[in-house]
Amino acid sequence: MIAKIGVLNISDRASAGIYSDEPGQACVALLRAWLSTPFELDYKIIPDERPVIEAELRRLADEAGCALVVTTGGTGPAPRDVTPEATVAVCEKLLPGFGELMRATSLRYVPTAILSRQTAGIRGRTLIVNLPGRPKAIRENLEAVFPAIPYCLDLIGAARLETHEAAMKIFRPKP
Amino acid sequence: MIAKIGVLNISDRASAGIYSDEPGQACVALLRAWLSTPFELDYKIIPDERPVIEAELRRLADEAGCALVVTTGGTGPAPRDVTPEATVAVCEKLLPGFGELMRATSLRYVPTAILSRQTAGIRGRTLIVNLPGRPKAIRENLEAVFPAIPYCLDLIGAARLETHEAAMKIFRPKP
Amino acid sequence: MIAKIGVLNISDRASAGIYSDEPGQACVALLRAWLSTPFELDYKIIPDERPVIEAELRRLADEAGCALVVTTGGTGPAPRDVTPEATVAVCEKLLPGFGELMRATSLRYVPTAILSRQTAGIRGRTLIVNLPGRPKAIRENLEAVFPAIPYCLDLIGAARLETHEAAMKIFRPKP
Repeated sequence: MIAKIGVLNISDRASAGIYSDEPGQACVALLRAWLSTPFELDYKIIPDERPVIEAELRRLADEAGCALVVTTGGTGPAPRDVTPEATVAVCEKLLPGFGELMRATSLRYVPTAILSRQTAGIRGRTLIVNLPGRPKAIRENLEAVFPAIPYCLDLIGAARLETHEAAMKIFRPKP
Repeated sequence: MIAKIGVLNISDRASAGIYSDEPGQACVALLRAWLSTPFELDYKIIPDERPVIEAELRRLADEAGCALVVTTGGTGPAPRDVTPEATVAVCEKLLPGFGELMRATSLRYVPTAILSRQTAGIRGRTLIVNLPGRPKAIRENLEAVFPAIPYCLDLIGAARLETHEAAMKIFRPKP
Repeated sequence: MIAKIGVLNISDRASAGIYSDEPGQACVALLRAWLSTPFELDYKIIPDERPVIEAELRRLADEAGCALVVTTGGTGPAPRDVTPEATVAVCEKLLPGFGELMRATSLRYVPTAILSRQTAGIRGRTLIVNLPGRPKAIRENLEAVFPAIPYCLDLIGAARLETHEAAMKIFRPKP
């Protein structure tokens, strides 16, 4: 069965067509550049509405059967930023190390990295990872955590992912 | 309207007059040295009682309309240390990056930095930041996170703060 | 009264006798090498069952009166990994700095360190610290956080621990 990956662009303005969906496209470009395993995309643009985000995360995990779901946007302190809350609400297990490493990585570039509240977690056989909204920060963050993602998917019984090693070197501990 | 900043010195002994309120005064001195924007202080010394702390944080946010509230003390593992619990209880959003960066900063000085449980969060248009109880640690911690605070206040619709750049350099991403 | 330390080896396979209890033995060896204070061990091997882990943590804290309890295993993202959830459920206070420092330490060796969800917390006069399951990672992690443990026990009114300074240098701030 082909691996499925969900990309969820969370943005009031992108979902209203006012902004282009650059953040989602940035994720897709990185996944295409890194993954040697063929995969099918489930791609959506939705507004910063917590019930909508939760419903979409549940669908991507339970119905679409995505191994990995990455979200973009909605992770800051503004009133409309609710992506982390929606993620926590649908996950059975949280992985605080993802947010810690992404913030520590972004802190090398901007002191406002501490305002990012992004997290990651597991729902069934799906790993959900929050990413920021700016394409440059998306690359920095996804590059930092991606080496651990394929092994995480192994551990939760999701699809096996392999990468082009020159583009993205992943790590699986020896058994 | 002039910006309001709350300083909450949380200490059984300081509130009983046994200790001086050095931690609170240390915060005030730093804010005066760094901020070029005029501001009005709401300054209180209260005991390590969770209901009292919560009530005071609610008052500073909802009635006093503070843009920023800094607390000092009560962040350790001792039975009377309940500042983080009170903060979590009154906040709508948590900002884990503040605690992570403050602990990482303090770890450069003392290995016991990992015992500090301080956090930060948003209530309405107020940012609440827990600081430790020792003046030296207060400076190290507030210096580490302050560059991100004015932009955080912009994002939640609170007062705009500017600083004397030679004393404290803040950061606002270009729109 | 002699200090009591609990070592809880959490592993389906070790508790079924399929694996040896190397992780638990690794903890005991480190504690024996580092501590100059005499201590009594409460040592158990149990399966990855959340109610069993919670009951055992409660017993070690409330009945056995352990100053410190270290757990090994069950901290990853796999369905049977529930040690952090059990720990959070029985603790009155969480110490996020322990997990942050342990993950940051392990990240120097393996990018999959972010998959570890280990935490630490306080129940009454007992400090509970989750450790990973591999002996090499146990040493790296316990070495990183141990310098802060005796002072933490002082603060919660637990037994006073001293170490052989050449093997493990601890830190207590001057009063």
